[in-house]
Amino acid sequence: MRNRPPVAVLPSTASASAERCSVLGALTLVGDFWTLGVVRSVIHGLSRFGAIQRELGIATNVLTDRLNRLVDVGVLERVSRGPYGARHEYALSAAGRDLAPVLLALKAWGDRHVQPEGPWMMWRHGGCASPAAVEVRCPDCGAALELSQLESVSLREAPEDA
Amino acid sequence: MRNRPPVAVLPSTASASAERCSVLGALTLVGDFWTLGVVRSVIHGLSRFGAIQRELGIATNVLTDRLNRLVDVGVLERVSRGPYGARHEYALSAAGRDLAPVLLALKAWGDRHVQPEGPWMMWRHGGCASPAAVEVRCPDCGAALELSQLESVSLREAPEDA
Repeated sequence: MRNRPPVAVLPSTASASAERCSVLGALTLVGDFWTLGVVRSVIHGLSRFGAIQRELGIATNVLTDRLNRLVDVGVLERVSRGPYGARHEYALSAAGRDLAPVLLALKAWGDRHVQPEGPWMMWRHGGCASPAAVEVRCPDCGAALELSQLESVSLREAPEDA
Repeated sequence: MRNRPPVAVLPSTASASAERCSVLGALTLVGDFWTLGVVRSVIHGLSRFGAIQRELGIATNVLTDRLNRLVDVGVLERVSRGPYGARHEYALSAAGRDLAPVLLALKAWGDRHVQPEGPWMMWRHGGCASPAAVEVRCPDCGAALELSQLESVSLREAPEDA
């Protein structure tokens, strides 16, 4: 499941340290407004080109580009439907479902910093009352972690490191 | 602390439903490759223009634009340093620190799907052994949640909703 080879490369201007960064690698594959916007629509249950286009108000050529890119990257799967499979729909792959924490973290930030009157909707655990929370947690001691409690640890030696 | 008025608006092509979405609002403010890349560098401890520029391999005019935008949005703060405050450095604001779960979720996705040989570094709770985990959790029952266990709930009625 893990370690599908990357299908995209960093911008050619990127430095060597950027090439070794999972964040910048992820951003290279999915880190633009419409790409993550389309993933959001599919998470919201939309599966057809026209429905995604109408919800986002995205230009059709941009949507075509982003859907193709997301299929190439392996985040979406194109599914044939209808008589003779003539119609396409889009579904999240396992890698696409793995993006849910990214989208939920963006939603939490937007709920707090972008919506002056509070959010319009929430995601919750079916049957429970409160919005699902995205938490950074220590798997060893169980503590919820602030940024100031995190330390970075190098896992591999890079040849060009001093 | 919460609900700083948004300083940016959605693309003029965006639909009404997009305007009510915290995810798309967040993406409008910070959702592009270099913007989140710069936030990543500051989270990694870099504070000066030249250091961020060298780490990311970003063009200087693009870095200037993204730093100005991040200060305008309230994610970064510009701090005067040096004799007579002639030098600027950049630090995360509270809203910037609130982006840590977004960046850590992107890192987790990149660790899994972009780095064929595994990650180059990890963030951990100081003194503990395992990488910090980003989890979607139900605050009521405590369950760790998969996407399939989430349900969306509308919190406000929109005039144009059917």
